[in-house]
Amino acid sequence: MSESEALCLIDGERGNTLAVSDRALHYGDGVFETLAIIRGRPQLWSAHMERLLRGCALLGLPAPDLQALAAECETLCQDAEQAVCKIIITRGSGGRGYRAPASPQPHRILIRYPWPQQVDAQNGLHLTLCHTPLSCHPQLSGIKHLNRLEQVLARNEWQDDAFDEGLMCDPQGYLVEGTMSNLFAIRQAALLTPDLSHCGLPGIMRQQVFALAEQRGISCQHVRFRPEDLEQVDEIFICNSLLGIVPVSRFADRDYPIEQGLAWREAMQAWLET
Amino acid sequence: MSESEALCLIDGERGNTLAVSDRALHYGDGVFETLAIIRGRPQLWSAHMERLLRGCALLGLPAPDLQALAAECETLCQDAEQAVCKIIITRGSGGRGYRAPASPQPHRILIRYPWPQQVDAQNGLHLTLCHTPLSCHPQLSGIKHLNRLEQVLARNEWQDDAFDEGLMCDPQGYLVEGTMSNLFAIRQAALLTPDLSHCGLPGIMRQQVFALAEQRGISCQHVRFRPEDLEQVDEIFICNSLLGIVPVSRFADRDYPIEQGLAWREAMQAWLET
Repeated sequence: MSESEALCLIDGERGNTLAVSDRALHYGDGVFETLAIIRGRPQLWSAHMERLLRGCALLGLPAPDLQALAAECETLCQDAEQAVCKIIITRGSGGRGYRAPASPQPHRILIRYPWPQQVDAQNGLHLTLCHTPLSCHPQLSGIKHLNRLEQVLARNEWQDDAFDEGLMCDPQGYLVEGTMSNLFAIRQAALLTPDLSHCGLPGIMRQQVFALAEQRGISCQHVRFRPEDLEQVDEIFICNSLLGIVPVSRFADRDYPIEQGLAWREAMQAWLET
Repeated sequence: MSESEALCLIDGERGNTLAVSDRALHYGDGVFETLAIIRGRPQLWSAHMERLLRGCALLGLPAPDLQALAAECETLCQDAEQAVCKIIITRGSGGRGYRAPASPQPHRILIRYPWPQQVDAQNGLHLTLCHTPLSCHPQLSGIKHLNRLEQVLARNEWQDDAFDEGLMCDPQGYLVEGTMSNLFAIRQAALLTPDLSHCGLPGIMRQQVFALAEQRGISCQHVRFRPEDLEQVDEIFICNSLLGIVPVSRFADRDYPIEQGLAWREAMQAWLET
């Protein structure tokens, strides 16, 4: 078994190729999740699977076999101290043009990646503002589907390492999220995050922030704000399943303090480290 | 050589699988063209290649080798009386997340399909109105990229064969195009088509309609109209590279006459048959 074969399971079998007839290649017809693996165990599994199922339902894909997925994730990652497991569900082959097959035969693809090079969370991240807007699609916003060219274009607006992440706006110029993360801000001890009811992808780690804030009696306001509104906030942080919660130290020529004083953030960090 | 292998060339080699690491699978990171093959020859090759190159440039993909593509298309299709050749350019593997590799190694995929079952052009097509809107993205509209979930959702709004095609609107409710075709209407001998400057995919056959109309001194008005505005037109037709130009006989509970009287349409048909 070669190393490259070991890193991928397709429908439970080792392999690293997909049929060129698969609709994921032709149309981006499928969904995915990216999970952190810590000491062999996928983190926040239930929340990821819930979103995966919701995405499948919205695209009219049969629900994947979650027991099979769990077993495959274990096979692939059980010996990993820290790793990333990406799960892709494709609609498979068939249909005529855009018309989906009446009885699709989806494929489950699990890929194990090394843990990404860590960002400098200690000193905070540097953010830029992307020009590429995010579309607000009534059916597709909120699904972690395989149509991700907007993120690819946004992420490729900068090539150097001066920035760790870029923020994206909706077509009206309101902040939505980062290319790979959700955005939060703190203003006078209030927690703010962009309203994602019409645009953007509500992340699993974002849910965790809500849950912990609620537990501590901190209300989170879902707001519509523009990039310049971030000049009025005290702190910014971003989050995703791999980064966890990371403070931002610079955005749009302004420096932000990296404080560890907020009780709920400390609690969150402690919770994440358990 | 099995039949399935014979129908696909990847970078000039027979094969029918793609690496699961390819960015086309993960992000729909690539472009495509669908060409009609008549008596072994691809139709409107230059126009298709021009659009393919434009799409590559806009996505930051290296320009594909057009001579290689032409040779591969000939290898694949030279014995076909009538066939379809789909050309896909993927960005290939690599990069870190959405960040594209600095030196991408794109792949050329050519797939030959049988000529599609013909629609009943003689009696005209039946059209429906899709609820799924088309996003208007300043960078992605106009590119034939691999992010096609909007079309997949729209095409799957109907499952029976009562309709041949569905029309799609932009988020403001203006008609843009069909799921797989461009739209034209005739009103008092004037030729109308949706303005695609902000949304939609200008087709190769649509260009041909413009060219022929211009040659005959017929001006084509690029308009913003709503579905209900089609009640006021005399005729409707749609076009794409495989269908050619096909009249519409029914849309939204209204019947439209199928007339062959318009000189330019006859000329167009004659031109297509040469």
